[in-house]
Amino acid sequence: MKFSFEEHSHRRFNPFTGSYVQVSPHRSKRPWQGQQEKIVKSEPVTYDPECFLCPGNTRVGGEVNPDYTSTFVFTNDFGALTQDIPSGSYEEGDFFKAKSERGVCKVICFSPDHSKTIPQLNQEEVFDVVKTWKKEYLELSELEFINYVQIFENKGEVMGCSNPHPHGQIWAQESIPDEPLKKQQKFLEYYQGKGKNMVTEYVQAELVKKERIIYENDSFVVLVPFWAVWPFEAMIAPKSHIESLAKMSESQMADLADAYRTLTIKYDRLFDVSFPYSAGIHQAPTDGREHPEWDLHMVFYPPLLRSATVKKFMVGYEMLANPQRDLTAEKAAGILRDL
Amino acid sequence: MKFSFEEHSHRRFNPFTGSYVQVSPHRSKRPWQGQQEKIVKSEPVTYDPECFLCPGNTRVGGEVNPDYTSTFVFTNDFGALTQDIPSGSYEEGDFFKAKSERGVCKVICFSPDHSKTIPQLNQEEVFDVVKTWKKEYLELSELEFINYVQIFENKGEVMGCSNPHPHGQIWAQESIPDEPLKKQQKFLEYYQGKGKNMVTEYVQAELVKKERIIYENDSFVVLVPFWAVWPFEAMIAPKSHIESLAKMSESQMADLADAYRTLTIKYDRLFDVSFPYSAGIHQAPTDGREHPEWDLHMVFYPPLLRSATVKKFMVGYEMLANPQRDLTAEKAAGILRDL
Ligand SMILES: O=P(O)(O)O[C@H]1O[C@H](CO)[C@@H](O)[C@H](O)[C@H]1O
Ligand SMILES: O=P(O)(O)O[C@H]1O[C@H](CO)[C@@H](O)[C@H](O)[C@H]1O
Repeated sequence: MKFSFEEHSHRRFNPFTGSYVQVSPHRSKRPWQGQQEKIVKSEPVTYDPECFLCPGNTRVGGEVNPDYTSTFVFTNDFGALTQDIPSGSYEEGDFFKAKSERGVCKVICFSPDHSKTIPQLNQEEVFDVVKTWKKEYLELSELEFINYVQIFENKGEVMGCSNPHPHGQIWAQESIPDEPLKKQQKFLEYYQGKGKNMVTEYVQAELVKKERIIYENDSFVVLVPFWAVWPFEAMIAPKSHIESLAKMSESQMADLADAYRTLTIKYDRLFDVSFPYSAGIHQAPTDGREHPEWDLHMVFYPPLLRSATVKKFMVGYEMLANPQRDLTAEKAAGILRDL
Repeated sequence: MKFSFEEHSHRRFNPFTGSYVQVSPHRSKRPWQGQQEKIVKSEPVTYDPECFLCPGNTRVGGEVNPDYTSTFVFTNDFGALTQDIPSGSYEEGDFFKAKSERGVCKVICFSPDHSKTIPQLNQEEVFDVVKTWKKEYLELSELEFINYVQIFENKGEVMGCSNPHPHGQIWAQESIPDEPLKKQQKFLEYYQGKGKNMVTEYVQAELVKKERIIYENDSFVVLVPFWAVWPFEAMIAPKSHIESLAKMSESQMADLADAYRTLTIKYDRLFDVSFPYSAGIHQAPTDGREHPEWDLHMVFYPPLLRSATVKKFMVGYEMLANPQRDLTAEKAAGILRDL
């Protein structure tokens, strides 16, 4: 018997973060008796008078949204990070270390239309979203105390999204958070050791192999990373060096919008349901330093596993020990490519 | 305005793993319009003819469970890790690194009674569970290829538990998984640097402060760690050095059972619902080396946030950047202590 990726349990290494994933391909046959998600297939309305994000409506904080026609950005009324706090730090012995954290939390409405999601917007509209991201990234970088800008989107009730109106968020802050910090360290090590960029080198290696590619256009590749954790996890990564949104040309932005739309359209087709996910961009910190080691890339973490109602639970073993998946990255990529 | 833990956003450091948590205490006031969990309050039956775990029933794999009266352990019929695979490894360039992983997955039924959960079992019955863990840990350590034994429990549908019959699992394997490996490194550094154990030193520091203690008995303390991530996260940790289950005396095992019962009884009272969580034990690897730097401790990661139906979602920002919580560790500990 020869060891095979498609049949035998193995661990794969993630060079972007230094972590591992446990892959158990034989486990796909396991019967599922547990929780089923509910499918909400209500007829969506283009305007909801109760929605905090629709044009012209009053938000929780009392402010009134303008009659916006494209994207619309505002500061989160219940942001986890705020600017107006006193700074302080607390350190006692080896175990009690804490520090105040200033930041800015914003909400980006992707469209005035309450009923739409990214895959249902046209290319021009998604292009507007990307342009808005760039504008926000540039503005937030100007703030002296902001050293990292996290742009992300939670889509679907199962992903804790409390409002179906198409929107994403930005949390920008003083510290570089754990996940991008791991990448920062690995990318820098690689750059210093090889004089090359880890992300684009990886993309080039995947373009040769072709096994995990879902889609490509002039500037970007959509792929399932070799070390993917979530069943249909995907990454949109550039073919050549792009440090951050700040450095993106119009045509690169259009290509990112195209890749984002194409992937999410495929996702919606997968189980014939509006596909839930958390997605976001990892890119150069805004700490005032040069970051030639960084390439912007967008990651998608969708929870559904086998159908619109059966998701992957990252629980016991995964929380306590190591992320685990059943389906191989190659299988997932093949399924998404063919849709 | 002075910086205060109870009011202002801050980051806390976890010295056990080297990671951070973003705390946003002011955010507790945020209204919740998102997904609500369903409460399943069916009249539970002591025996379910359809259950794979009840005594005398036939399992998915075709085997018949014995008429057990206390705990019962068997090898998982759909284990993510198995023994009988060929070994192999794959390494190509900087990006493609994988290795076969052998292991053993077991299921431990905590009681023959289908309707019971840990907080509903008596002290003697939970003591039996702890003794079973010790027996399994010892047996698995004997297997030359097993270097780490992860004991855990997923409780509740929301935690991906596919069967309400009271049970836990053991996944034992060749590699030390990521989470215990981080602790292994931190504990060893601390031990080599100070000649002391990080876990018991931490417990002693918390016993002086008293702010985050929920409960204690002769051998163990139940506390909310300063760097807790989940809203009502807790840890059961020893007052003095206990490397692993292998080294536990009868009275220490009885005390661990008592702490486990007491905490889960409090949990059930919190929102008047059978409280979901993932829990498990981190302890010395079984790699044949001495591990004086390790102390066994049990961690509890429960998802509920505000009520039986509103959970904390670890999504967008948390997946992409950093875990985040609203409620402070001190508040959570106070609530659990007083129950
Ligand atoms: O209890 P089960 O059915 O084996 O499975 C459950 O626990 C496992 C270990 O934490 C997870 O990998 C699964 O996603 C979860 O559904
Ligand atoms: O969109 P909301 O309501 O701000 O909140 C959602 O996203 C946040 C950032 O990922 C999470 O911290 C919350 O748990 C989630 O419910």
